[in-house]
Amino acid sequence: MRTANTFSSLANHQIRLAQRPVGLPGPECWSHSTEPVTEPVAGGVLVKTLALSLDPAMRGWMNEGKSYIPPVGIGEVMRAGGIGSVVASQNPQFAVGDVVSAGLGVQEYCLIPEASLKPSGIFKIDLRAGSVNQWLNVLGMPGMTGYFGLMDVGQPQPGETVVVSGAAGAVGQTVGQMAKIKGCRVVGIAGGAAKCEWVVKELGFDACIDYKTGSGAVRAGLKEHCPGGVDIYFDNVGGEILDDVLAKIKRKARIVICGAISQYNNTTPIQGPKNYLSLLVNRARMEGIVVFDYASRYHLAVAEMAGYLKDGRMKSKEDVVQGLATFPETLLKLFKGENFGKLVLQVASA
Amino acid sequence: MRTANTFSSLANHQIRLAQRPVGLPGPECWSHSTEPVTEPVAGGVLVKTLALSLDPAMRGWMNEGKSYIPPVGIGEVMRAGGIGSVVASQNPQFAVGDVVSAGLGVQEYCLIPEASLKPSGIFKIDLRAGSVNQWLNVLGMPGMTGYFGLMDVGQPQPGETVVVSGAAGAVGQTVGQMAKIKGCRVVGIAGGAAKCEWVVKELGFDACIDYKTGSGAVRAGLKEHCPGGVDIYFDNVGGEILDDVLAKIKRKARIVICGAISQYNNTTPIQGPKNYLSLLVNRARMEGIVVFDYASRYHLAVAEMAGYLKDGRMKSKEDVVQGLATFPETLLKLFKGENFGKLVLQVASA
Repeated sequence: MRTANTFSSLANHQIRLAQRPVGLPGPECWSHSTEPVTEPVAGGVLVKTLALSLDPAMRGWMNEGKSYIPPVGIGEVMRAGGIGSVVASQNPQFAVGDVVSAGLGVQEYCLIPEASLKPSGIFKIDLRAGSVNQWLNVLGMPGMTGYFGLMDVGQPQPGETVVVSGAAGAVGQTVGQMAKIKGCRVVGIAGGAAKCEWVVKELGFDACIDYKTGSGAVRAGLKEHCPGGVDIYFDNVGGEILDDVLAKIKRKARIVICGAISQYNNTTPIQGPKNYLSLLVNRARMEGIVVFDYASRYHLAVAEMAGYLKDGRMKSKEDVVQGLATFPETLLKLFKGENFGKLVLQVASA
Repeated sequence: MRTANTFSSLANHQIRLAQRPVGLPGPECWSHSTEPVTEPVAGGVLVKTLALSLDPAMRGWMNEGKSYIPPVGIGEVMRAGGIGSVVASQNPQFAVGDVVSAGLGVQEYCLIPEASLKPSGIFKIDLRAGSVNQWLNVLGMPGMTGYFGLMDVGQPQPGETVVVSGAAGAVGQTVGQMAKIKGCRVVGIAGGAAKCEWVVKELGFDACIDYKTGSGAVRAGLKEHCPGGVDIYFDNVGGEILDDVLAKIKRKARIVICGAISQYNNTTPIQGPKNYLSLLVNRARMEGIVVFDYASRYHLAVAEMAGYLKDGRMKSKEDVVQGLATFPETLLKLFKGENFGKLVLQVASA
């Protein structure tokens, strides 16, 4: 084990929440800080950040108010899940060199006290099952969200038609590929012709609708690609697109509410789905998913999907941006729909 | 069996849809017609209307466009379910004097040809199980809607908190009383202090919130009467009230979408529930119910609730208005929230 001297010479660069955003989070929302890296005390570990997961949910964490998780406090290091390498350990369960998934925050080093070393908050990952980036994507939280949202809430049956918005994102790519493996016809919704082409060619979706081609594009696309209607809609975006799909659902359809990225930066109230009575006419169901509820079964989903990654039935596509300092602008790629694949911030090499 | 002469001297007064309404259906939407009563031909029956069920769903049938059932055509007798007495029969399955539940329409006599005598469209009722009015209420379509919506979609557990809007109506009274029998705490939502008091005293709800006392009344009422949150919301009204309840649901809550009477007379687009992301945060489910799906199990629900009516654990409360000709104005009572109990139009005596 290294001595305390080794670390005290290192700087931990951090990005903190400076103020709560109104609309898109601009540079004024962030402050940059530097702290010395300190050795863990008895029971704790020190983790060096390798890569961070950038997710739409981060926008929600920046808001005040009750949600499924408390907001990030003003002045606190921004919350982020990531993969890191244990560089010092005072805990027998973790050895230097272990690679872990944990809530590291947007910083280069994360000191985790013993009290926070809960199985739900930190776990070792096996790089034989997938790379660091894959562990942030299909094998990570977004993958778990897509897997359990589709399988448990959506309950896909062979031959059904599954539509997923945010198709090129981390959750969307998991949902679409899993649905294909389960024998469904899969139609993505994404922004831009290039991204839609990528979704079909790289991820193997049957079709992908470009919502950016103008008003009515999603309705027209659904009419073309889902002539018999939609059995499952996995919604990552909310807004008009949710209404467009509601108008096309089949009897006993399932709508999985995973997110509403189109609404997260609203400065006006959230737009409710005005076509929600389609649920009545079609005896359909709209249900929310929060991934943490499935923690006891993550290992099963990881094992299944790692198998698909190995045998080539599934791909894990990431959009990797380098450098902690780029965090504020990189995060905006999500809300502008610029990422092709799961957005990963690479902070250091393994 | 009577001869054809008996009936040809009788007049059948009818109310027809003259034009599609914009907003509340005024008198201009209706026309009155009179036809001679005719004898059924081979296989058919002639039914004399005793009482008709007046339901919020009627407003939907007056609109053009796709729904779970085709719209009533312009010039057609207005669709209505009712109870009638068979006064002539050319069908061995029905005898003169049988009392039946059927889609009689807003008219004094209904001639039903053999092709329409399907078990799903007409069935004999047993007046020992309940009165004519009870067969339009708790033992009829609204009762079946409330029963299966609550039991199959809502899945109440003892000790849970159930909120139901339109509490004084036919569906609402069934839902609330069934939920009480199943061991739930039941809070109604209705319009006016008198009606709310009636819901608590006559129907035995634990509390009833008066939505008419002003903006914020439902939020305040939910805070007072559902301090631990809402497990099941049975929604008959939609609009602001649905949003207010969404803000108070508990984890794994179930919202049964049965109707949206607050929106049926809108001349602007339906108001979508802007708090729908509460489904996500709370891993909750919103699901539509159409009663026809449960036709094969109606007899079971009738048997169960007829037992409760007999032993006094359940009441069937009707608001009875006399005379076919009053139909246009009587229907408006529903949309103005003036009915205390299930609205029944009595057309003739048994």
